[in-house]
This record gives sequence, C-alpha cells and structure tokens, in this order.
Amino acid sequence: MLYQTENPHGGDLYGRTVSLDFSANTNPLGTPPAVRQAVIDAAELLNQYPDPYCRALVAALADFEQVPESWILCGCGAAELIFSFCAAVKPRRALELAPTFSEYATALEAMGAAVGRYPLEAVNDFSLTDDFLSFLGAGQWDALFLCNPNNPTGQTIPHPLLEEILDLCQKKRMRLFVDECFLDLTDGGRDLSLKPFLRDHPELFILKAFTKSYGMAGLRLGYCLSADSELLRAMGRTVQPWNVSLPAQAAGVAALGEREFLRRTRAVIHEERAWLQEHLAELGLRVFPSQANYLLVKGPAHLCEKLLERGILARSCANYHGLGPEYLRLAVKRHEENETLIAILQDILKEG
Amino acid sequence: MLYQTENPHGGDLYGRTVSLDFSANTNPLGTPPAVRQAVIDAAELLNQYPDPYCRALVAALADFEQVPESWILCGCGAAELIFSFCAAVKPRRALELAPTFSEYATALEAMGAAVGRYPLEAVNDFSLTDDFLSFLGAGQWDALFLCNPNNPTGQTIPHPLLEEILDLCQKKRMRLFVDECFLDLTDGGRDLSLKPFLRDHPELFILKAFTKSYGMAGLRLGYCLSADSELLRAMGRTVQPWNVSLPAQAAGVAALGEREFLRRTRAVIHEERAWLQEHLAELGLRVFPSQANYLLVKGPAHLCEKLLERGILARSCANYHGLGPEYLRLAVKRHEENETLIAILQDILKEG
Repeated sequence: MLYQTENPHGGDLYGRTVSLDFSANTNPLGTPPAVRQAVIDAAELLNQYPDPYCRALVAALADFEQVPESWILCGCGAAELIFSFCAAVKPRRALELAPTFSEYATALEAMGAAVGRYPLEAVNDFSLTDDFLSFLGAGQWDALFLCNPNNPTGQTIPHPLLEEILDLCQKKRMRLFVDECFLDLTDGGRDLSLKPFLRDHPELFILKAFTKSYGMAGLRLGYCLSADSELLRAMGRTVQPWNVSLPAQAAGVAALGEREFLRRTRAVIHEERAWLQEHLAELGLRVFPSQANYLLVKGPAHLCEKLLERGILARSCANYHGLGPEYLRLAVKRHEENETLIAILQDILKEG
Repeated sequence: MLYQTENPHGGDLYGRTVSLDFSANTNPLGTPPAVRQAVIDAAELLNQYPDPYCRALVAALADFEQVPESWILCGCGAAELIFSFCAAVKPRRALELAPTFSEYATALEAMGAAVGRYPLEAVNDFSLTDDFLSFLGAGQWDALFLCNPNNPTGQTIPHPLLEEILDLCQKKRMRLFVDECFLDLTDGGRDLSLKPFLRDHPELFILKAFTKSYGMAGLRLGYCLSADSELLRAMGRTVQPWNVSLPAQAAGVAALGEREFLRRTRAVIHEERAWLQEHLAELGLRVFPSQANYLLVKGPAHLCEKLLERGILARSCANYHGLGPEYLRLAVKRHEENETLIAILQDILKEG
C-alpha cells in the first residue's frame, strides 16, 4: 500500500487505535457548538461553490483583528498559507529556528530554497536569546521564519527581542514570517503579537489559524495578515480560487463570535498546564517551561511507543531538527484526560 | 475593498442577487442526502485533523475506479491538483486548447511555464479534429492539457483521436493531462475515459472531481489517477499534509456509494439538455452540440447582464481565449428551472 503524501506531524489517529490524542495541540474544550451548527447548516449548500473571495469571513476577520480587509488572506488551513507564501516569495535562502514546526522547511524546500537553522539549546530551555541578533545580522537571508510561541517547545519570544529582530529584518530587507497560530491560546498572547507593527512593516507577515483556537483542525481554515497587499495578491495567484471550503468559511464566521469560549479555554489551559507540569515533573520527567497549550517533555526513549500501546497518542519529537527520541510533546487537555495520562505514565515508568 | 484572489469562473453567487445559478456546472439534482448526512456527522469530529493520507477515501476510490491505491492522489478540489501537477512537473512549455478551462493556464503561468494555445473553431463547433495531430507532432511541448468533454464547449474528444494523441505524447515524451471532471455526467462517459490506458502510459494523468458529479462544489474534493507514482509523490510534496478536509473525505466515501444517483442524474441531463437545445434554438440562439451537462450558446452581446438583472446567473464566456462577449455557457438544470430560463430569455429577446 502506497500513500503519496508524508505526514511527520501529530494528530494522525487513522492508522491505529487511539483512545486519547495528546499529539494534536487543539482546543481542549473541543469545537464550540456554534461552529458545529454552522457546518450542519452548510450541509444544505454543498452544491454551491464557496465564495472565492471569502467576503463574509474577511469582513468578520477585519473586525476581529481590527485591520483593513486588504491585509487579510484566507487559506485552507494555515498550512496552505505557508506553501503559498513560499511559492509567492520564492526565497533563495531562508532561516528558521531548530527545533520548530517542520512545514516551513518542507514548503521552502519544495520551492527550491536553501534552509538555514539556528539551533536553540536545551540548556536555555530552548528559548530564543539575544545572541540570535548577531547571528541574524551576520548572515544573508531572504526570509526569517519564527513561531511564537515556538512549536514544539511552547516558549514565547520576548517582545523587546522580537522588535529588535523586526528592525533588523527591515534594515536587511528580509521578510519576517511569524507564525502566531497558538498565540490566542497562550498566556498573555494578545500582548505578544506583532500585529501592531504591520502598518509600518510591510516585510512582516503573520500567520494565524482557526484550527487550534476553535477546535477546527478537521475543517482547514487559516489566515494571514500583512500590509504588503502585493504579496497577498501574489499568494492568491499560487492557489486555486476556491481553496477555502464553504463549511470552513461559515464556521470561521461563527467562530469569531465565540470570544467568551476563547477566554474560558485560556483559563482551562493555564490551570491544566500548571497541573500537568507539576505531575510530569513528579514522575521524574524534564518538563520545559511553556506558555502555550502544549508541553515539551524529556524522558526515557520509547515513551511514545509505550503510551501508544495504552491507547495514548503523544507527539514523538524524534524527527524535529535539534531534538531526538527522548523528547515528546503533549497537548494540555481537559482535567480528566490529563489525569488519565498521568496515571498511565506512572504505570509505564514504574515498569521501567 | 480589496480582494486578494481573482475568480474568472462561474458559481460566484456572493456579490449579487441570484435566484437561479446557470453558471456553475454542478449536478442538477443537487447533493445526495447521504453526502449531506456525512457532513452533518463529521461536525462532531471537527477538532480532529483530517487523515493526511485519506486512507478510507483512497480505498473507496480504488474500488470505484478499479485501479491500485498507489495510482490515486486526492486534493482540495480538482483545482488544487491542477496547481500541484504544475508545481511538481514544472513544464517549461505547455499546450492547451482554446477555448478551455482557464485554471490550467493560470497554474502553469504561476509556475513559470509558457502556455501555447491550439485554437478550436466555431465553424467546426469547437470540436477537436485530426488536424491537431500534425500541429502536436510539429511542436516541442513538455505537457499537453486536454479537457474531455471540453469546458465550456461541451464537446467530447472522439476515442480514436484521443488514442493517437496519447501515442504521440508517449513518443515525444510529453505528459498528457486529461481533465475528465465532467465525464461522469456525460453521455457515454464511461467509454470516453482514458483510464484503461493508465497502466501502459505513465505519462498519462487523469483529473477527476466530486464537485460536479455529486453536487459537492462547496466541499472541495477532487482526485487524480496516474500510474506514475513518483509524480503523485512529488505532487504530495508541493501541498500541505491536511489538504483534504475531514468533512470532504467523509462525504467522498458516502458519494461513491451513490451509483444509482449518478445514473439518474445522467438520465435527467440527457433529457433536459435536448429540451434546452431545442428551445434555445427556437429563440434564435446558436447552440453548439454538447454531450455534457452544459451548453455553449452564442447570442446577442450583453445577454448575461440582462439575465442577471432578472436574477439568473449565466457564465459569460467573454474571458475565454477564442470566445467573446457574445458567448455564454449554461448549465443543464432541472426541468422547472430550465423552463424559467427559457421564459426569461424569451422576454429579454423579445424586448431586443
């Protein structure tokens, strides 16, 4: 049996028996009922093409993000926008951190770019430090890819450093791609966004998703923000006109009304992350600091395989640049699910 | 207000008041209830990533098409597969017919290809004739794009000619891209497919969609068939891992069980197309022969605008290479809808 695409990510429940998925970093409260209802209502309209311009969704996003409509482009999940950014910009040399989300490099390499990696270090808890600035300043890159908070480390990039990076990118005429897909679920996320800098920084590109925040991974809906409307237009030309499905557009509009749901989610994540951190550490695992809805954990190798034998899917970090099989990433889920995880881990680690 | 994508196609109901859409060539009977139900059921699973390998859908397609699973790749609508074919193959010079579906050239040009066009002629009812063979034989092309039946003309390509084209492509090491998206709704469609030639022709690539056949335009689901598994793998690397949404995969599996629905659709189209052809001709419009679920019609300029004033969206063919504002394309719809169209056209043409 041959499959034509390769999936190095979490969330693939389909080839195995999984009772709890800790590998996908989606909303622990699931999908808001209004979003599910929007999809059910859309089932009556399937014979209709989706709006190729996502008019209603773009208007709702402009209101939600408080940016002009011309700064917004929607995609079939944030992942598609990574590919269309790379297809439109065609960077020859791009820089990313290591470890980070692997789709940047996959998309860059598909478009023929050379990918450089700046190694983050376990000794610094994989945080980005000021040392990065001299590295960035010394090199020649067409684009820099950052993920804030970073995936899979859960570390946010402090704002003074982010602003210095942005200034350096402007000086060096380098595009700055910042993936803020997890920021709506992150402690103090609103204050960490580079959104206020968009107007004065056409080189800045911000990626956002509905996937994680609103439990919509199955639907595929992402968007991006940039004041460089020419770039967004060029990206639009690299994809088909109907890339965002009709149910996804309807669900997106419904999701943007769910601000209370988002607040409640953040509170649950804040509390449950602390609980998980404490209990994972008690089991002797190294838990890296995280402000996000997932945790990077270091433990004995093959922990992922042993969890899967018990029906728990965790994200092995064996295939991340700069990590290895002793690392895994765990989503912060609802309390009873987190309790189950800890109990099973306890069993596994007791057995040795 | 700025929009970042450009849509030159039919089916865009969103910026205007439309009571009947004759511009989108989707199934006149709409979406089968089982497909709608699959989408409603999928609303419970939205927090889950789609299967990145479309395992269940590929298995169902292999059974439906009677080809090995390794010959199948699914996409976010057939339109996405046009882009990923062009991104993977990167043809420098490609040939298409004129007029034809414009996304081939859009995708080719986005990937830097030069697009040549072989003009079809109104005097031949825009059919492809044997003259094409010498043109094809004389030129140097990396890929040939055919649409069977052609869009917007509705003309099928006769099999002896298709086979000669295929042989010539093999000899000249040219890829042959054949869009068979409308073939399941076409008279004698089964016998017109090049599918039996896949095994011996790795240069052959067949595009298919759920969009039209099963009234699923809003969901975005297409697939392609090729015995060149390396090509499919390369195409998979040009797109994100979750390009086919969870509702679309579930709906696709449900749709493939609807063979009786497809038979019934073909019967309705056959009958209604003849009825429309007769009544459009009676109104003094030139109706081109068609075996498909749409008709190319020549009439006074501005007929589209006048129809739209009455709430009927037709597909103006002003932006097709080789056509002009006096051409329009009309979908074959249900009888009462076709009656409404004829009545309104009668009114408009009477007014002059």
